[in-house]
Amino acid sequence: MVLRLALTSGEPAGIGPDLCVQLAQQAHPHQLVVIGSPDVFKERAEALNLPLTLRPFDDAQPASPCAPGELFIETCHIAEPVIAGKLNPANAAYVLQTLDIAADGCAHNRFDAMITAPLHKGVINDAGVKFSGHTEYLAEKSGANPVMLLAAGNFRVALATTHLPLSQVASAINKDQLVRVLTVLHDELVQKFHIAKPTILVCGLNPHAGEDGHLGTEEIDIIIPTVNELKDQGLSLIGPLPADTLFTPHHLSDADAVLAMYHDQGLPVLKYAGFGQAVNVTLGLPIIRTSVDHGTALDKAATGNINSGSLHAAIEMAATMAATPS
Amino acid sequence: MVLRLALTSGEPAGIGPDLCVQLAQQAHPHQLVVIGSPDVFKERAEALNLPLTLRPFDDAQPASPCAPGELFIETCHIAEPVIAGKLNPANAAYVLQTLDIAADGCAHNRFDAMITAPLHKGVINDAGVKFSGHTEYLAEKSGANPVMLLAAGNFRVALATTHLPLSQVASAINKDQLVRVLTVLHDELVQKFHIAKPTILVCGLNPHAGEDGHLGTEEIDIIIPTVNELKDQGLSLIGPLPADTLFTPHHLSDADAVLAMYHDQGLPVLKYAGFGQAVNVTLGLPIIRTSVDHGTALDKAATGNINSGSLHAAIEMAATMAATPS
Repeated sequence: MVLRLALTSGEPAGIGPDLCVQLAQQAHPHQLVVIGSPDVFKERAEALNLPLTLRPFDDAQPASPCAPGELFIETCHIAEPVIAGKLNPANAAYVLQTLDIAADGCAHNRFDAMITAPLHKGVINDAGVKFSGHTEYLAEKSGANPVMLLAAGNFRVALATTHLPLSQVASAINKDQLVRVLTVLHDELVQKFHIAKPTILVCGLNPHAGEDGHLGTEEIDIIIPTVNELKDQGLSLIGPLPADTLFTPHHLSDADAVLAMYHDQGLPVLKYAGFGQAVNVTLGLPIIRTSVDHGTALDKAATGNINSGSLHAAIEMAATMAATPS
Repeated sequence: MVLRLALTSGEPAGIGPDLCVQLAQQAHPHQLVVIGSPDVFKERAEALNLPLTLRPFDDAQPASPCAPGELFIETCHIAEPVIAGKLNPANAAYVLQTLDIAADGCAHNRFDAMITAPLHKGVINDAGVKFSGHTEYLAEKSGANPVMLLAAGNFRVALATTHLPLSQVASAINKDQLVRVLTVLHDELVQKFHIAKPTILVCGLNPHAGEDGHLGTEEIDIIIPTVNELKDQGLSLIGPLPADTLFTPHHLSDADAVLAMYHDQGLPVLKYAGFGQAVNVTLGLPIIRTSVDHGTALDKAATGNINSGSLHAAIEMAATMAATPS
């Protein structure tokens, strides 16, 4: 079955357009539809000296695979010409509009899933739009309360909190939040990853998982009772465990996913393990969304010196999740 | 040159005594001196059904390598008999005394270095002694202000803060602390690891290293100015970088060490990468101290089902650091 996969190209001055142009160089079994300005892609293809044919996307036609050198496009107009490597707040609205087109298209079944290339949070905020990440943006848009998961093959790490200053993490950990995140994670592992009874390892918040309260009390006050309550309800949870012992083969080999309490507790090890192949998946949305795991790499835009492994993995994961009835 | 290496066996109800007994089964080129109660080691050897000869350590004799089946011992009396797997606050003073004997022995050149097996912070605190870790204890004892480093081969991660509840980490990051830690780390890489001009990668505190202030301001207010000041003084520093991009081959391949801002930002990835072979090194002390990277594993005491890879690596690293004039 040929799927329709929307691909947002992210920050136009970064490597997002390069990734799309590189992607087009091979045939693809699904209909890849980039959302963006034809000019941006054509200019980048020229800079990279690569061929590119853009075919207008028409959802009235049957889904069609991509031939080498071509991509489908859903046009979105950009405010100002793009200079590779140079951020321009005037084009921030364009970046958000590509997300809206992809997400709305998924919601209305014009697309089966959306894959996002990296954007630059800073320049969107500089343009006066409060923005803390794709995940949070799609959450607000859909009214859902999603969960961020990074995956490299079967090594999966979800986050209890996402893009918060470190000083705000401890106070953001509470029972309701943990119940919600663990429930979404469990349900999506069952429904989208087809694991009948997933086992989830839960990190402590503090070093050594608080060491019986000597290094912090959130484990005793919040995490342990919440984990126990969910175990009583039938979830297969292990923890809270110290993060620096959890991420070892002894524990990981029995687990389908890890819940880290915050960004830098879980993602450095996942990205170390899955370098260049990690995929960011947003769970708990009414649509399927995957993403590359890296940033805009402004200094590499239009150079050709990039690795598209994460984008390929993100497209493959989106297709797998979309292909099987959930 | 045969070195005298003091080995503290840590929590007696944990796997520390097992590690010492296992260690004794092979010959060793240096004089390994366990600090502890002969009864504890003999009982554990019996439980494991392994031979063990304990030779009293005499610092008036020339240093002597260890034959298979034997260890040297510096006796320290224990308050109550040990039950493997069962913590007993009555024996907490014993654990601290073994540290004192080893550290004082190093300070007075009776030993060339000390290696520590895991102790249990909780039971020491339960015995009424405020204790947050080996590193902090040796710091206070020596009046030094040390730096905790974990190493697996040439992959080295030092910590700007160590055993703090996560809620206290952000407020513990300040310029004086960073200058001190980076200076100690740099100097010890030169003196003890013999790297002429070490390059150190510095993590940000916040996710994405604060993303230009959008996810926290400690990078802009503290870390960036401090790193720049030290670079002006000749240190080779790179950062602050986001932790989840720093720990990838592109950055690590050029670096001699990483400075993580806190425990669970740096140690999960180091222990994942160096599973079972990681060594904890205390830098900035007037003595040489290395340690295993794992805990007491109470449930495995007296079972024989343990991995002594980290202890072997810790002894080897201590010997290397002690053997070369610093």
